[in-house]
Amino acid sequence: MNKKKVVLAFSGGLDTSYCAVHLSGEKGYDVYTAAVNTGGFSPAEEKELARKTEQLGIDHHICLNVEEEFYQKGIRYLIFGNVLKNHTYPLSVSAERVFQAIAIAEYAKSINADAIAHGSTGAGNDQVRFDLVFNVMVPEMEIITPIRDQKLSREEEVEYLESHGVEQEWAKAKYSINQGLWGTSVGGAETLTSHQPLPEEAWPTKAVENDMKTIELEFKNGEPVGIEGENLSPVETIRKLNEIAAPYGIGRDVHVGDTIIGIKGRVGFEAAAPLIIIKAHQLLEKHVLGKWQLYWKDQLSEWYGMLMHEGQYLDPVMRDIEVFLENTQQNVSGKVFVKLEPGCFTLEGIQSGNDLMASGHGQYGEMNNAWSGDDVKGFTKILANSMLIQKQVQNND
Amino acid sequence: MNKKKVVLAFSGGLDTSYCAVHLSGEKGYDVYTAAVNTGGFSPAEEKELARKTEQLGIDHHICLNVEEEFYQKGIRYLIFGNVLKNHTYPLSVSAERVFQAIAIAEYAKSINADAIAHGSTGAGNDQVRFDLVFNVMVPEMEIITPIRDQKLSREEEVEYLESHGVEQEWAKAKYSINQGLWGTSVGGAETLTSHQPLPEEAWPTKAVENDMKTIELEFKNGEPVGIEGENLSPVETIRKLNEIAAPYGIGRDVHVGDTIIGIKGRVGFEAAAPLIIIKAHQLLEKHVLGKWQLYWKDQLSEWYGMLMHEGQYLDPVMRDIEVFLENTQQNVSGKVFVKLEPGCFTLEGIQSGNDLMASGHGQYGEMNNAWSGDDVKGFTKILANSMLIQKQVQNND
Amino acid sequence: MNKKKVVLAFSGGLDTSYCAVHLSGEKGYDVYTAAVNTGGFSPAEEKELARKTEQLGIDHHICLNVEEEFYQKGIRYLIFGNVLKNHTYPLSVSAERVFQAIAIAEYAKSINADAIAHGSTGAGNDQVRFDLVFNVMVPEMEIITPIRDQKLSREEEVEYLESHGVEQEWAKAKYSINQGLWGTSVGGAETLTSHQPLPEEAWPTKAVENDMKTIELEFKNGEPVGIEGENLSPVETIRKLNEIAAPYGIGRDVHVGDTIIGIKGRVGFEAAAPLIIIKAHQLLEKHVLGKWQLYWKDQLSEWYGMLMHEGQYLDPVMRDIEVFLENTQQNVSGKVFVKLEPGCFTLEGIQSGNDLMASGHGQYGEMNNAWSGDDVKGFTKILANSMLIQKQVQNND
Amino acid sequence: MNKKKVVLAFSGGLDTSYCAVHLSGEKGYDVYTAAVNTGGFSPAEEKELARKTEQLGIDHHICLNVEEEFYQKGIRYLIFGNVLKNHTYPLSVSAERVFQAIAIAEYAKSINADAIAHGSTGAGNDQVRFDLVFNVMVPEMEIITPIRDQKLSREEEVEYLESHGVEQEWAKAKYSINQGLWGTSVGGAETLTSHQPLPEEAWPTKAVENDMKTIELEFKNGEPVGIEGENLSPVETIRKLNEIAAPYGIGRDVHVGDTIIGIKGRVGFEAAAPLIIIKAHQLLEKHVLGKWQLYWKDQLSEWYGMLMHEGQYLDPVMRDIEVFLENTQQNVSGKVFVKLEPGCFTLEGIQSGNDLMASGHGQYGEMNNAWSGDDVKGFTKILANSMLIQKQVQNND
Repeated sequence: MNKKKVVLAFSGGLDTSYCAVHLSGEKGYDVYTAAVNTGGFSPAEEKELARKTEQLGIDHHICLNVEEEFYQKGIRYLIFGNVLKNHTYPLSVSAERVFQAIAIAEYAKSINADAIAHGSTGAGNDQVRFDLVFNVMVPEMEIITPIRDQKLSREEEVEYLESHGVEQEWAKAKYSINQGLWGTSVGGAETLTSHQPLPEEAWPTKAVENDMKTIELEFKNGEPVGIEGENLSPVETIRKLNEIAAPYGIGRDVHVGDTIIGIKGRVGFEAAAPLIIIKAHQLLEKHVLGKWQLYWKDQLSEWYGMLMHEGQYLDPVMRDIEVFLENTQQNVSGKVFVKLEPGCFTLEGIQSGNDLMASGHGQYGEMNNAWSGDDVKGFTKILANSMLIQKQVQNND
Repeated sequence: MNKKKVVLAFSGGLDTSYCAVHLSGEKGYDVYTAAVNTGGFSPAEEKELARKTEQLGIDHHICLNVEEEFYQKGIRYLIFGNVLKNHTYPLSVSAERVFQAIAIAEYAKSINADAIAHGSTGAGNDQVRFDLVFNVMVPEMEIITPIRDQKLSREEEVEYLESHGVEQEWAKAKYSINQGLWGTSVGGAETLTSHQPLPEEAWPTKAVENDMKTIELEFKNGEPVGIEGENLSPVETIRKLNEIAAPYGIGRDVHVGDTIIGIKGRVGFEAAAPLIIIKAHQLLEKHVLGKWQLYWKDQLSEWYGMLMHEGQYLDPVMRDIEVFLENTQQNVSGKVFVKLEPGCFTLEGIQSGNDLMASGHGQYGEMNNAWSGDDVKGFTKILANSMLIQKQVQNND
Repeated sequence: MNKKKVVLAFSGGLDTSYCAVHLSGEKGYDVYTAAVNTGGFSPAEEKELARKTEQLGIDHHICLNVEEEFYQKGIRYLIFGNVLKNHTYPLSVSAERVFQAIAIAEYAKSINADAIAHGSTGAGNDQVRFDLVFNVMVPEMEIITPIRDQKLSREEEVEYLESHGVEQEWAKAKYSINQGLWGTSVGGAETLTSHQPLPEEAWPTKAVENDMKTIELEFKNGEPVGIEGENLSPVETIRKLNEIAAPYGIGRDVHVGDTIIGIKGRVGFEAAAPLIIIKAHQLLEKHVLGKWQLYWKDQLSEWYGMLMHEGQYLDPVMRDIEVFLENTQQNVSGKVFVKLEPGCFTLEGIQSGNDLMASGHGQYGEMNNAWSGDDVKGFTKILANSMLIQKQVQNND
Repeated sequence: MNKKKVVLAFSGGLDTSYCAVHLSGEKGYDVYTAAVNTGGFSPAEEKELARKTEQLGIDHHICLNVEEEFYQKGIRYLIFGNVLKNHTYPLSVSAERVFQAIAIAEYAKSINADAIAHGSTGAGNDQVRFDLVFNVMVPEMEIITPIRDQKLSREEEVEYLESHGVEQEWAKAKYSINQGLWGTSVGGAETLTSHQPLPEEAWPTKAVENDMKTIELEFKNGEPVGIEGENLSPVETIRKLNEIAAPYGIGRDVHVGDTIIGIKGRVGFEAAAPLIIIKAHQLLEKHVLGKWQLYWKDQLSEWYGMLMHEGQYLDPVMRDIEVFLENTQQNVSGKVFVKLEPGCFTLEGIQSGNDLMASGHGQYGEMNNAWSGDDVKGFTKILANSMLIQKQVQNND
């Protein structure tokens, strides 16, 4: 008789290792582990993951690389929309979870799997993100979440693995780290409180750089395409910028917000490149887009970020927002000058052939060549009409 | 025969000095100069202004102090709404212009003036802010703007004053500075370009402080009411915080945006206290308000800030937004811990009796006491329904 | 030993009758039935309900009258906000469910109940509305939903009741009707399709009136307070208007929309008074409110209606929206003239001391006393600035 | 010496006839009259206009037909967006003015005109719409508006024309009518009041039809493409539907709103086809689009309609909104059944291959095949979390 196939989203940690053994052992599944690389794993780390699955006795393992797809179908729009959840968080983890789930679902479909398993607990956002994507993309497959269902302690998991012949060092890291192309999240004892900041040791990249430096970041149609005069792909630009800026301690912050399940959550993150790119892109847009374009971009982007964060990336409205955002980027090309300093960065200015400041039409506070003082008087008179009428009719003036 | 009375909004600079002499001289008005203090003038500076009007031969001068009103009817709501125009600018000047205009209009009414004069040029936002308020509050009074109408050069103005016996040093400052309770604006040659930052010498407060320090900022019902454990009024808190934080070089930035007259403008500003207060207030709100309260506060506040910036403070919708914002602040009480560093500040955390993180209900990513994994499965299943149906019906899956 | 107390939301129909017997019988609860009158039950019907519970062997029955509360805390804001879900539906049932649930929860609390039961199925909105309110207001009480849990057929329920000695005529009505102060919903075979309208026989009020008539509806601060010159309370106005207008066949429509559980639903409704009041109120507002007040009222009201519809009335943002809406109504006073005809109504006009049309300031298309053609030229010139600059800089013109 | 060329937007009425003679006569311009047909002129009427210009002594006349362009670049998006200004007005006149202005500007450019003239007064919206488009598209051309500038009475204009040899019957119609493809506006003595409806005689199409009839309207990708089973182009569909429905007296209403110049205005309109198409399209969308697509379509469409109404069609945000709206229409195909009755119409239902009601997934209030009662319990439990926590932490429960 054929065993049922389950695809297990595999990270190499204790939880998913437990799931692998539990599913292949007492549950009798044919387990296909799948790691999804959204830019956080090096080739060496990919190999190490493969080695781990062997140790666990898993026959089928794959590493799905979706970094480019993550950029093209996700990050790109987060940049166009200057998406910072709650004015702070570039969706480092939330966005990549969606693309991990999609990759897992597509892989599961391609091998005709019967079920999908993931290692989420019952207290976080990730369980919803994974389940949502699976429910929509592969509703016919069972979703199995042993950690959420069994609520085991770390000790019980370690013991179980040992009793199944898996001997490994499962030392709990003091800080749980999740790394991808669009940033790294950091959780620890402090983020479970409301008042404690993360200590220096918690941050993945050490803040060692002290030399102030101004760099030049290039955008084309809204996408980051180079740094310091060197043409790069957007993914390369993000990587390069991160290498340069992260050692300044730039891009560290703590996100506090409403989880999908209604409680408040707090998580640290380090995202030097995402923060610089978004802020630089936003400044460039202030120079090349009109007032109402800026206004409506903000409206739609906030929504886009919220649905992305909450795992509802597959809602059709997301595709509609994407064409809107894309259409706004036709003139968002130029250079942005960014000064890096220990702990922070400053936007110094921009240069663009589409810069609306450089119109010769008038200069703020200085010249009005293209209109007269009387024009402005007329403008203001008409603009005052509605307020004046309302005052006269309703305030008994 | 009686002379006509004109109230002149007076700043002591070359432009309004010219207006005073021009109006009282060849125009034959009885000139009443009025300076409006929104927190930027010291008593000594107020005296100096009075002295200047005497020199100009003006008989009636008054200094209207509206700092407290500016806070109560303006800044307060800007804090409730976390208003940063274009994600950057706390409306340091724009907001105070409105309250200056209102004070002038009320004074003009109280002395039965025939006209109001101000020194705005034809290329900026201020002309619209002043004209709008006057058009609505005192539509019966003529508005006179000699600078805008005559388009004189500085040299012509100086010459004119000298020919009328006013000998004074009118050296043009390299940077034009406007100071009030809610921040200081800085304009100069660099802000007329798109790519140049303001140099160190341009900033009113020198960045001399190097010692990292964490301070405690207290809020009550959304208002800042103390610092480092000392109870203060909101106005005092703003002043004190500015004294502490500005010497770190905190709160300097450049605002780029759409002027009311449709051109783009760029202006530097230094606003240490406003930026810290807004960001700290916003963090506190993330802990004590619900998701949709945060969402709708943002929507309404952006609009509130836009209308305030554009001088439409007297639009009735502003009063409606104010009651909304006020109602959201009932639980926005607590302490925020802010770390000050050279050039930037970091929010370390908050402490509040209304903190929704501290519910015992569940802990993000850790515990789910109040619900089960099955509850979340059901939640996600139902949440997926609409996307799944749309996919099945419309994508031929 | 004490029995556990359960409060059962009781409607007198087959489902809740089954629940009553099931809970008191094999489940061994002490059953307290509670009917909630939101304006749909006459005193005779209330008595009939009480009689029915006796027949079912229930010792404790109460009828909670919340019509006035429903108006004061719900309908009032739906009027202020001109709430029509999906541009059509006045939330006739959705709004009243919330107030029924609140009344039940308060009653359950007052008698220290251990559980609450309701007769909802698993396919509708009402289960969510009831559960949500109970989960928030009385999280300590168990929620019991026998119909949803057991998925019994009508036949099985009738059989069960007969086997427990309850002999009654349980003929299934061809159309299921739910009546309250703010309208009546109508479901039937046709509403399960997408293309069939409800037939004449389905509508509760027969369309017998043919005489065209214009009536005068009075509003004070946004509330309906009289009809045809007679001063009435808002609740009386709604009742009286319905008596007059419903026999014209006015106010019938079909609502199609997204249910809370993600599927699409379709339901007929008859709501003559709600539709006339909302449309009349909206017309009055067009005359007395400013452009941005109208705009933001629409924004917030749509959200208010959506959360109300989806049972999230207890979200704190609802209280914030209510103060906003209330603040906008200060000048919404006057008369609206409504012409009633078979099948439809027309708004003929309004009369109000706050009418902004009657300003003497200017008359649309006719006179411009308060401004000149040059003022408008200036206005338009400045308004064109941003578009012109964008065209010149970016379109290579 | 060459005369300067002026293009005069010509309607054949007294005002533009006066302008023609005035400009060619005492102003010495070489006058090019241009009529723009947006669907309101028959070939006979076009000829009559040409004849009139000859009578006035004008050598160059053209009729620019932009009906198809008006549909493709304007009406199409108004349908996609279900645009009804202030919930009432399909922008019959406002939208066509924009396309008239664009046609005039392009024509003026093509003949290298020096100036453009139009017959607007100083009290309406049209002056702003025309001036705005001209200011943006041909800022180098002078804009001449004799009627606005000279404020002549009808009598003075008639006298002037007679004194220049133009003898014609200039009887003022009791109602001023403006007709185009997207509806007809009607102004008269009643629309200058707030309380009077327009009498039967005022309406262009007489209400003579009494036979109730249900018709079938076909949409493809959001566009109306047929009626009663006959395939038609969108423009033909609009024309045909109007022929069928207008004689029922359907589509008559009065629009009250804020003019661009800040006063309130009131104008009657007859727009049977626009209203039926918009309401039918909207119903179809309720069946085939998701909740958030409907929500954001409404947001963006309201803005689109507002800017269109106010003549800001050339703002770049309009192009961004258009691609959004277009993207939402991929599945908006199907039939809508509309019952026509004297004075009103009812939407009976729809039929569409993309209908989300027809999913077999569940039936509202009836069946829940695809989920269980427990799923909904879990859903509601999680949905209640945030409200419950807020209540427990902040309300001291």
